[in-house]
Amino acid sequence: MRIALGLEYCGTAFRGWQSQAGGGTVQDALEAALSAIAGSPTAAVCAGRTDAGVHASLQVVHFDTTALRPLTAWVRGVNSHLPDGVAVLWAQPVEDEFHARFSARGRCYRYFLLNRPQRPGLWRGRAGWHHLPLDLEAMRQAAAVLPGEHDFSAFRAAECQAKSPVKTMTRAEVSRQGEFFVFDFAASAFLHHMVRNLVGSLVHVGKGAAPPAWLGDVLRQRERKLAAPTFSPDGLYFRGPIYEPRWGLPPVGGDFPPGPAP
Amino acid sequence: MRIALGLEYCGTAFRGWQSQAGGGTVQDALEAALSAIAGSPTAAVCAGRTDAGVHASLQVVHFDTTALRPLTAWVRGVNSHLPDGVAVLWAQPVEDEFHARFSARGRCYRYFLLNRPQRPGLWRGRAGWHHLPLDLEAMRQAAAVLPGEHDFSAFRAAECQAKSPVKTMTRAEVSRQGEFFVFDFAASAFLHHMVRNLVGSLVHVGKGAAPPAWLGDVLRQRERKLAAPTFSPDGLYFRGPIYEPRWGLPPVGGDFPPGPAP
Repeated sequence: MRIALGLEYCGTAFRGWQSQAGGGTVQDALEAALSAIAGSPTAAVCAGRTDAGVHASLQVVHFDTTALRPLTAWVRGVNSHLPDGVAVLWAQPVEDEFHARFSARGRCYRYFLLNRPQRPGLWRGRAGWHHLPLDLEAMRQAAAVLPGEHDFSAFRAAECQAKSPVKTMTRAEVSRQGEFFVFDFAASAFLHHMVRNLVGSLVHVGKGAAPPAWLGDVLRQRERKLAAPTFSPDGLYFRGPIYEPRWGLPPVGGDFPPGPAP
Repeated sequence: MRIALGLEYCGTAFRGWQSQAGGGTVQDALEAALSAIAGSPTAAVCAGRTDAGVHASLQVVHFDTTALRPLTAWVRGVNSHLPDGVAVLWAQPVEDEFHARFSARGRCYRYFLLNRPQRPGLWRGRAGWHHLPLDLEAMRQAAAVLPGEHDFSAFRAAECQAKSPVKTMTRAEVSRQGEFFVFDFAASAFLHHMVRNLVGSLVHVGKGAAPPAWLGDVLRQRERKLAAPTFSPDGLYFRGPIYEPRWGLPPVGGDFPPGPAP
């Protein structure tokens, strides 16, 4: 049978999602825990691979198993085998046609940026940082060009393995909360480093190095070297995939990150 | 001359505030950085010592130096010598009579508690956790007995070095934010482990193990062994000391932790 899991993790504790020699990734930790509960080697497929340092307030995975266990075993039992910094939130049986990655119709990311002269102390590893004051309105104007179907080659890492650079963005919003800026993106799918590259270019506009219209020019020219440098992984949070209601899975989680304000 | 610094730090990166053999504390890191900028050994006195794992969204320290440096050297220069997880936010010259600890008229702490069946993943080290549902109203009723002048011996650690267990509490509030509970305390001063012990006893009431009035009974009986166990340091944040306006220092910081909501 096929089972879907929702999990959350802190990126600073892992070397990214994808299994690698030497271990230390979320996939390595999760597959070891699943295999311990299942009693046989168990592989997990995730909705969205995250790089080293990138967090997930919701990651969805699926796995196949012949082991019959109560659903609580796939939550509490697996959690008892997982290291600190990653936890299973829910488990649910799904039809064999469900695929954590290919069934996703969209994905949500948030970037959390500390904007003040002093570097982060309390928020180390949990927020990006820019020391110069940023102009919210300029960044909002620049971001307004992003929704819709575009060739996002200008914001694509060289090592990106996606078949096509054309994606449909459904949300690109910037808001301010005290000393922080919050960047929210949703799209059909994202290219490698796309959010971090978009944030880098929005910050470039925000600090006044280019006018808001520059972002649209960069997008249209589809040249990675025209855009600004990739931003740090520290502030990036995968908020989860969006599935069709027919799969019956829980929706994208609460207001993480960064969680509740007092 | 005497200089006051405001700093923030992530408790998971240090073995508490107070200098110890083997180093690894916030004080060790800060004094090394101050000494590097001053060019001579420089000792720092803090407003409120924090245990290992406890965070500070604002800690205030003072130090004495004969080195003449621009104020930016005590912020940016010191930060360039500090490890990840601690940062100086501001520096200000103060009169010689100012003392980070003895001039403080009050101190503010916050405890941040994740309340859900699954243990923290994303918030590891940043929030306490309780798995059973907690009753907000019961905890509020219990906390209402705390403001005022009391002998807080029931919530005092055995190793506490305070001269007197009598403190004046000016704030004891509980609020809910999604899956989190936020406990806010302010008092003239706090005994060792006092906030963590108070949270332990409030959770004891919140999960229904005792009625709200039990907390007042425990307070009046002044017996540590009657109260509930000490809660984890993970969710505890020192929000800063309160000084008289005449010292001219910046007020307690923004809405940390946990920072802004989207």
